[in-house]
This record gives sequence, C-alpha cells and structure tokens, in this order.
Amino acid sequence: MPDSSLLEVFPTPTETPFTIEHISEEFTSVCPVTGHPDFGTIELLYEPNETCVELKSLKLYYQSFRNEGIYYEAVTNQIRDDLVNCMNPTWLQIKTVWKGRGGIRSVITATHGDVPT
Amino acid sequence: MPDSSLLEVFPTPTETPFTIEHISEEFTSVCPVTGHPDFGTIELLYEPNETCVELKSLKLYYQSFRNEGIYYEAVTNQIRDDLVNCMNPTWLQIKTVWKGRGGIRSVITATHGDVPT
Amino acid sequence: MPDSSLLEVFPTPTETPFTIEHISEEFTSVCPVTGHPDFGTIELLYEPNETCVELKSLKLYYQSFRNEGIYYEAVTNQIRDDLVNCMNPTWLQIKTVWKGRGGIRSVITATHGDVPT
Amino acid sequence: MPDSSLLEVFPTPTETPFTIEHISEEFTSVCPVTGHPDFGTIELLYEPNETCVELKSLKLYYQSFRNEGIYYEAVTNQIRDDLVNCMNPTWLQIKTVWKGRGGIRSVITATHGDVPT
Amino acid sequence: MPDSSLLEVFPTPTETPFTIEHISEEFTSVCPVTGHPDFGTIELLYEPNETCVELKSLKLYYQSFRNEGIYYEAVTNQIRDDLVNCMNPTWLQIKTVWKGRGGIRSVITATHGDVPT
Amino acid sequence: MPDSSLLEVFPTPTETPFTIEHISEEFTSVCPVTGHPDFGTIELLYEPNETCVELKSLKLYYQSFRNEGIYYEAVTNQIRDDLVNCMNPTWLQIKTVWKGRGGIRSVITATHGDVPT
Amino acid sequence: MPDSSLLEVFPTPTETPFTIEHISEEFTSVCPVTGHPDFGTIELLYEPNETCVELKSLKLYYQSFRNEGIYYEAVTNQIRDDLVNCMNPTWLQIKTVWKGRGGIRSVITATHGDVPT
Amino acid sequence: MPDSSLLEVFPTPTETPFTIEHISEEFTSVCPVTGHPDFGTIELLYEPNETCVELKSLKLYYQSFRNEGIYYEAVTNQIRDDLVNCMNPTWLQIKTVWKGRGGIRSVITATHGDVPT
Amino acid sequence: MPDSSLLEVFPTPTETPFTIEHISEEFTSVCPVTGHPDFGTIELLYEPNETCVELKSLKLYYQSFRNEGIYYEAVTNQIRDDLVNCMNPTWLQIKTVWKGRGGIRSVITATHGDVPT
Amino acid sequence: MPDSSLLEVFPTPTETPFTIEHISEEFTSVCPVTGHPDFGTIELLYEPNETCVELKSLKLYYQSFRNEGIYYEAVTNQIRDDLVNCMNPTWLQIKTVWKGRGGIRSVITATHGDVPT
Repeated sequence: MPDSSLLEVFPTPTETPFTIEHISEEFTSVCPVTGHPDFGTIELLYEPNETCVELKSLKLYYQSFRNEGIYYEAVTNQIRDDLVNCMNPTWLQIKTVWKGRGGIRSVITATHGDVPT
Repeated sequence: MPDSSLLEVFPTPTETPFTIEHISEEFTSVCPVTGHPDFGTIELLYEPNETCVELKSLKLYYQSFRNEGIYYEAVTNQIRDDLVNCMNPTWLQIKTVWKGRGGIRSVITATHGDVPT
Repeated sequence: MPDSSLLEVFPTPTETPFTIEHISEEFTSVCPVTGHPDFGTIELLYEPNETCVELKSLKLYYQSFRNEGIYYEAVTNQIRDDLVNCMNPTWLQIKTVWKGRGGIRSVITATHGDVPT
Repeated sequence: MPDSSLLEVFPTPTETPFTIEHISEEFTSVCPVTGHPDFGTIELLYEPNETCVELKSLKLYYQSFRNEGIYYEAVTNQIRDDLVNCMNPTWLQIKTVWKGRGGIRSVITATHGDVPT
Repeated sequence: MPDSSLLEVFPTPTETPFTIEHISEEFTSVCPVTGHPDFGTIELLYEPNETCVELKSLKLYYQSFRNEGIYYEAVTNQIRDDLVNCMNPTWLQIKTVWKGRGGIRSVITATHGDVPT
Repeated sequence: MPDSSLLEVFPTPTETPFTIEHISEEFTSVCPVTGHPDFGTIELLYEPNETCVELKSLKLYYQSFRNEGIYYEAVTNQIRDDLVNCMNPTWLQIKTVWKGRGGIRSVITATHGDVPT
Repeated sequence: MPDSSLLEVFPTPTETPFTIEHISEEFTSVCPVTGHPDFGTIELLYEPNETCVELKSLKLYYQSFRNEGIYYEAVTNQIRDDLVNCMNPTWLQIKTVWKGRGGIRSVITATHGDVPT
Repeated sequence: MPDSSLLEVFPTPTETPFTIEHISEEFTSVCPVTGHPDFGTIELLYEPNETCVELKSLKLYYQSFRNEGIYYEAVTNQIRDDLVNCMNPTWLQIKTVWKGRGGIRSVITATHGDVPT
Repeated sequence: MPDSSLLEVFPTPTETPFTIEHISEEFTSVCPVTGHPDFGTIELLYEPNETCVELKSLKLYYQSFRNEGIYYEAVTNQIRDDLVNCMNPTWLQIKTVWKGRGGIRSVITATHGDVPT
Repeated sequence: MPDSSLLEVFPTPTETPFTIEHISEEFTSVCPVTGHPDFGTIELLYEPNETCVELKSLKLYYQSFRNEGIYYEAVTNQIRDDLVNCMNPTWLQIKTVWKGRGGIRSVITATHGDVPT
C-alpha cells in the first residue's frame, strides 16, 4: 500500500532558490474497478525550501503504489499531499501522464503554492 | 445520435484545485454534405468544480457521434456545451484536431470560463 | 456491411511490371464481442496483372466495414480475398495495423502469391 | 489568377467565442522573377465574427494562386486581406511556411486585429 | 505467478498462411535479486497453425507475471514455451524490450520453428 | 505538358559502377478526373551507364508536369520510360510518394533492369 | 570577407505590420584560432519598416563569411548590425545555432528594438 | 577535482545586450554514495556583462568534474557560482539534465539575476 | 584500467537458441593522444552457448575503461575479445557508436563467429 | 584544392576482420557552374586491410575540398579513389548525402570491392 513513511529528505545544499525535476517513467498501480494495471509517468517539479526529497526513497515510495487499487485523480492528489507534508516546498507540481485505456489517454496535474508558468 | 445522457460524473476527490486532461485519438463522425467519415482527436482539458466526468461514460458519449452527420465546428461546440452542462467546471477547453480533407487539416478550439494560458 | 461489389478496376496502363501501394489511415470497424469501435490503418501493396483497383472505389469499399462487427484477422483475410478476386494480381499483401486495445497493439499480415522481400 | 470571389462563408454556429485553424500543406505559386514554382504551407488561424469561411471554397481559392507569379510577402498579405474582407473576423493570423530556396527557408506572418499569444 | 492456464485459443479463420503480431507495451515483472520492478515491451509475432491465441486471455497471462521474481531471459523463454504449447504455431518469435537498468537497456529474442527474415 | 526533350545528359565521369539518387519533394500534377492538384515526391535511383541526367534539366522536366492531367500510375511509368530512353542506365527505379487524397496515401514504384535489393 | 554592400532591399509591400523569418541552414565561417571551419544555421526574424531585405542578396551576403576567421559572437553581432543598417526594421532578431565543437553546441542571440516574446 | 581556475574570459565584443547558450552533452561525474558514474547535459544560458567565458576553458572546467563524487544539486549550484564569480553576468541560468538512474530522470535548474521567461 | 576479471557469467537457462542484446549508452574512455574524454554507446548482441554474461558485472567491466587512454578501434576489439573469452558464445557482435569529434562521428563493429544478417 | 597527401594511416590493430564507419556532417565544396557552395554529409564505411585512415588527417583531407569547384559525382568518386589508394581496404563504400538544390536532394554512392549488404 502507498506508504509515505518511505520518503526521506536531506537539507537543501544552498539558500539560493533553484528548481528540481524528477521524472519517473516506471509507475504502475491498479484500476480499483476492473483490477487491470495502470501504467504512467510521474513528473515532479518543485522549488525546495529547507529540505529536498532523497531520490532512492522517492523511488521506493512510488513502488509502494504497485498493487494499490486507486484512481488517476487520487494517485495524483495523494502524491502531492505526501510530498508537501514531508518537504514543505516553496511550490510543487505533480503531473501524472497515463497510457491509453479504451482509446483515451489522461493527464492529471496538481499543484501546491504559486507555480511559475 | 449524440447522446449527452450517456455522460456520468463522480464527486471531485479533493477541494484543492487541479486539472484533468483526457485525449481521445479515436473519434469519428460523418460529413453532413458528402456522407464521408471524418476522423479526429478530441482533447478535453478542465479544472473540476464539484464533479468530474467518468472516463468510460465519456468514451460512450464520444462513440454516440459515430454515424452523425455533423460539421467540425458543431461537434466542438456541442461537446463543450454538453460537458459544461453535466459538470459545471471552473473552466474547460475542447480542442478537436481533424485529419486532412482535400489537403487541409483543421483544428477547432472552444472554451468555457477563463482558461489559463 | 462489407460490400465487395463496390470495388472497380481499370486496365493496367503498362505491361512493364511495377508495384502500387495504397495506405488508408482512416479505417474503422466494430469489435464483434464488445461492440466498441476498432481503428486501424490498412496497407495494400501489390503488383498488378491486367487490372488495377480504382482508388475512390477502394475508399468506399473500406468505408463499408464501418458498422460491421468483425475480428482483426477476419477483416484482413476478407480484404485480401476480395481484392484478389476483383484484380487477380501477380502478388498482393494486406497489412492491418490496429490501435491499442487493453494495452496491446496488433498487426495482421495476409498475402497472395509470392511477395518479394 | 488569385480569385477572392471563390471564397464562400456560412453563419457562425454559436455566439460563444471559439477559434478555427485550417492548415493547407499543398500550396504552390510561381516565383515572379525566375518562373520556378514555390511550395509552401498556409496556416490560417482566426476567431470568427458572424461568418466562417467554407472549407472547400478556401481550397479552391488557394488553388487559384497555382500559376500566379507572386512573392512570398505578397501572397501572405493578399490572403490576409481577402479573408478579412469576406469574413470580418474578430482576429485572424496567416502564417506561410515556404520550402527552401537557395538554402534559405522563409516564414511570413500577417495578422488582423489583436491576436492572442 | 505466471499462469499459462489463462491462455485461450480460437480456430484459425482461414487455411491461407498469414502472420499475427501483438505488441504489449505494458509488461512488468520483478527482479529476483533486488526486488525492484522491471518494465518492458513484449512483441509476439507468429504464423498460426490450427489455432490463434485469444487477445484478452493473452493480456491476462502477461499480467500474471506482475509480482513474479524472474530474469529477463527466463521471462522470454517461458512465454515462448507457453505459447508454443497452447497454439502449436508454424513459427513464432518473442522479443522482449526492457527499459534501462544501471544505464544498460536489454533486448531478448527467442524463436520457435523457422522464422522468416 | 510533360516534355522529355527538356532532359539533358552528361558523360559518366568514371567507369567504376556507382549509384545516383535524386529526391524531388516539390512535384505537382493535376488529377485528370477532378482537376484538383496532386502533390508528391519523386525518388529517382539508378546506376549510370555511359551518361547521367543533368540535375537542372531534370528539375525543368519535372516542372513540365505541373498543369498536366495525369494519373499516379501514368506519371510514374512515363518518367521511368523517358529517363530510360535518354540515359540507357544499367538499372533504374522511380518511386512516387503521393500526399493523401480521401484519406488514402499512395506509393507507385516502377523499375528498369535488375534493381539490387 | 563579409561584405554588407551585397545586401539589397525592396519596398515593404504593405503598411500593415507583419513579420518575416529567413532560416539559412547552410552557413559556414572559419575559427580565427584553429583555422577549422565552423558550420551553423542563421535564423533572421524581423518586422519590416519601409524596406525588406532581398532574399538572393541575403544569401550572397551570408556566403561572403565563408573564408573569414571570426568568432560566433562577432558573426552574430555583425549580421545584426549590417541588417539593421540596411533595413532599419521595427525590430529584428538574429539567432545563430552552431554545430558541436569539442562536445559543446552554442546558440547566440542578438536583437534590435523591442522583440515580442 | 572541480577546478574553477581553469575558467578564462574574454571581453564582450559589443555593448548591445545579447545572449549566449553553450550546451555540453558530454558531462560526467560520480555518485558520492554508490561510486557509479553519472552522465548528463549541461545547458548554460546567460547575458554577458563585460566578459564572456572562453569556450575551450569551459570544456576543461567541465572535464574537471570527471572523477568527483558529487550530487546533482551540488554540481548545478557549484557551476552556477563558479561562472557567476568569473564572469559577473547580467543574468545566468544553468540547467543540468541527467540520464536515468533507477527509472527516474532528473533536471536541476539554478539561476543568477533576473532570467527572462 | 580495463579489467576483464570483473566479468561474471551464469548458466544459459535453456538449450533452445536465442539472442541477447545489451545496449549501454553511458560509456566513456579517454583519447590517448589529446587526453580528452570520448563518449559512446556500446551495443552487444550475441547468441549464448553454455553461459551468459551477468548484467551488473558487464556494467562494472565497462566502467573500468573510464580513465583508460585507448582508441575507438582498440576499445571495440578488446571488448569483443574479453567477452568471447569469458562466454565462448555461438556468435557475438560489438558495435561502438561514438559522439562527434571534430565534426566526424564514428561507428566500429567487430564480430565473432557467423553473425546472422 | 583537394589534397590526398593529407591522408595518413596507422596499422590495423587486429587481424580479425571488423568494420569502421566515419560520418562527417560538415562537408562543403563549390558548384563548378554557379559558384554557390554545396553542403553535404560524407559517410565512409570500410573493412580495413593492413592500415586504417587516421581520423584527424581524414578531417583535413575533407576540408581541402572547401573552395574547390566540383560536381557531386566527382567528389564521391575522387574520395573513393583517394582512400582506396592510401589504405587498400578489403572493401569500402562512400555515400555522399547533399542538401537540397532547386528542390532536389541527391545521394551518390561509390564502392570498392565486395561490400556486404
């Protein structure tokens, strides 16, 4: 099951603002209605405050969704909330890009703070 | 015939604003003048208010245009109106991208509310 | 329903062998089990004998599958047989390339005569 | 010769603002100096007012440039003017994208009204 | 666990030889050493004998590898063997294309019978 | 009208066999039935014998088809014959690749002599 | 040597503002330190005032850099200055895109007037 | 070890503002935890003040990271600081684009001054 | 220094012939003349005999070239020889694809046994 | 002027047959008729005998064509002959790929010995 306790952080190495993007092309969860697997890409973009999420812990956190029955919208909002809780970033954006299902591809985008365009 | 009663919604799972995009690359209707089929992609982008459109119902709604004789512009505006009526979103954009006809490709874009650039 | 009587031919304009390829990216039929539409590309490649298939009649013939419930394999073999019957070509190859369904894309290839590699 | 009388319009099917894009990849005219043919793509983007240009009439209008000796800049401005005269759109943009000539590719863009970025 | 009893077949609809390709871009299993998930594409190409594998049963069979700890080479050979056992095809080729791991991407190809080049 | 007298040749500069390919992406002729323009690419590949076709004369020859009403198959065979007559090459291949018409793209290939694969 | 006297202009054919882009993918000069040739693309974008640069004269002007030993930055600024002097445009942008040298690709951008984003 | 003393500058050749971009696709350093090499692209974009960084010295400076154990974020911020110290540019942006590690690709962006969008 | 003792093998899991391809896009060595780093992709393709090379050991073996001064041709032949010695495959092909140096990209291909086309 | 004395060789480092490919995307010469520059890519592919051409000397040799007025066919055959004379390879292929001129792109291929397909 999704497990936010897997997330670890490290101190931001500089006080000068900068941005970090982690793109995971190997995300999978399960459709809660049909039981069929969903496959997608998770794009995380944020400006750190005092801490940054550690990369290997992020991978393990994403893997904890593997056998969870959960909708696209819920995955996206839960990842946004879990990462905001553990890092308290200046701003953050999660974009989930899903492979097709019944001929329709979907993209869900959730944000925290004022994300620059 | 296009049947907006096929559309179903579910409650938006969070009060934090976010956006949803559904891209259907398998849309077809019929040219009302020549009777030849038209093929296109329907790109729906919106920020939900209290409800979201259910994905399978959206697919069936799109399929109900299959044998309808209808112009590009009318398809686009009807989908915009039907989705606004059933979901009442904060904002919504429909972009229809049509395959070539006589050497000319067309893209029609209709919006509801203030769509961010 | 698929209607091979729509196919028309014209005399091959030269006795020197040559090849003709017609690629239709706007084919659709219906899944006989689920009733959902299938979308695909039909690639026809052949060396004519005494007659060639007329292009507009080929388009109308393909359109006659629009509301037919029929499997990928049957579509491919029926088009091969109908075209061989009307043209009697030296050789002919039909390749049908289908959009994804449940995460699996399919390609079916049927031939008549000795198709060169 | 270019013939704007070929252009026909139909009433805009809705009062809600929307945009229309027609992309013709099969445009050709003739260089007035060398007599060699020019090949290009014409991208028309506009927000209709009370009328929309009819697609087949647009194709015939473009074809009327086929044997005209005319510069890139003049083609672009003439199409802009002819379409503005026949449709009186809220805003309109014409972009002509030309194939290379002597190692230089050209793009000319003309507008009418306030085109949104 | 991988379960070949999920595979179902249907009678080949014609006696004329033809080929079938099914490409699944949504395959995942688990590395038996590290426990991390592997992601790949499974490309099945075959010429049927008396039976063809049914598409939905193939999808479920592939899904049965989801939580199995198994090497690339073993996945490929097992799928080859299971499909040969259930269909007895004239020839068959399985190509598994894996996403990168430690900067190295891998492709494994196993065949049955004389696969034409 | 197509004018093969425009074609000029120059002596092949070496007796060692080699191949020459000229790809013209700016070909246009007219459909003899509808009067609408056709657009295509002409790919010429050959091994010269004692003479090679001069490049500028080839361009002018292709331009002479501009306002000719002629089918795809006839264009291809006529270019093959005209070039074989003026150059007498060891072997030659003409491939014409046409833009879509009614949703179908076509490729016609004609050869002279034994074209290596 | 670079020769701005090669540049010729013609009167702008309309008083309505529009933009012109000329992209030359065949530019070469020489590195003043190593003597090795540099290869790049020159992208010119401007809104004309009373005159436009003539296309063939622009090609000859670019060719006059062929054997000049000159740095990337100097090429870019000199072209900007020469074109501003001969045309006096409302605004103008020169972007030079250079092929790799020692594993590093470079892009230099110089402007005149207020270039719209 | 990273050695900023390798960086050399030359006087900016014009007082008119312009921008310079250097893209190095051949950067490598070492992960401080695992000892495995990291590979990335370094994109430097800046508007010079009185001096510009010399291209060959930039290459040698980047090469000095080859065997350094250093995190993505630290590489990015150190390059930003070293270049700002040696050039004092009007504004500067460093974007580091890293190849995948454990299925996750990363992009880090650091800036100095007001970078235009 | 290149260290073939890092290579480890495991028993081939089946007696049925199959092929294995490992593509490493993160290879670097050093030019023995200039001391500048070289970057390339190593494509290994083979049919195993009784053993297969273990993937992590292959990665470490490739990494052992990191600071070695060695020519393209020598890298390619040494990898071929080291892998043939440790695995004794039925056939094997090494293709090294190098990034540009002075405007020239290189590809070196070495084989062992009869590699099928 | 083209100067084959610039070419240098080094002893082939192994007696096992292998192939070498050098792709130069920065070749330029001059059209002997118009005086305008030609730009192309030179693809050299060969199996060495006792010697290999040295890469930097190959670059300088290619640069010696920079201001030579010479046809496509002559460039290709001269490079083939010069390289065969200096290396005496088992087999060799030169392919020159030229940018468009008057809307026609050209590819010339010359070989020595039996080039494998």
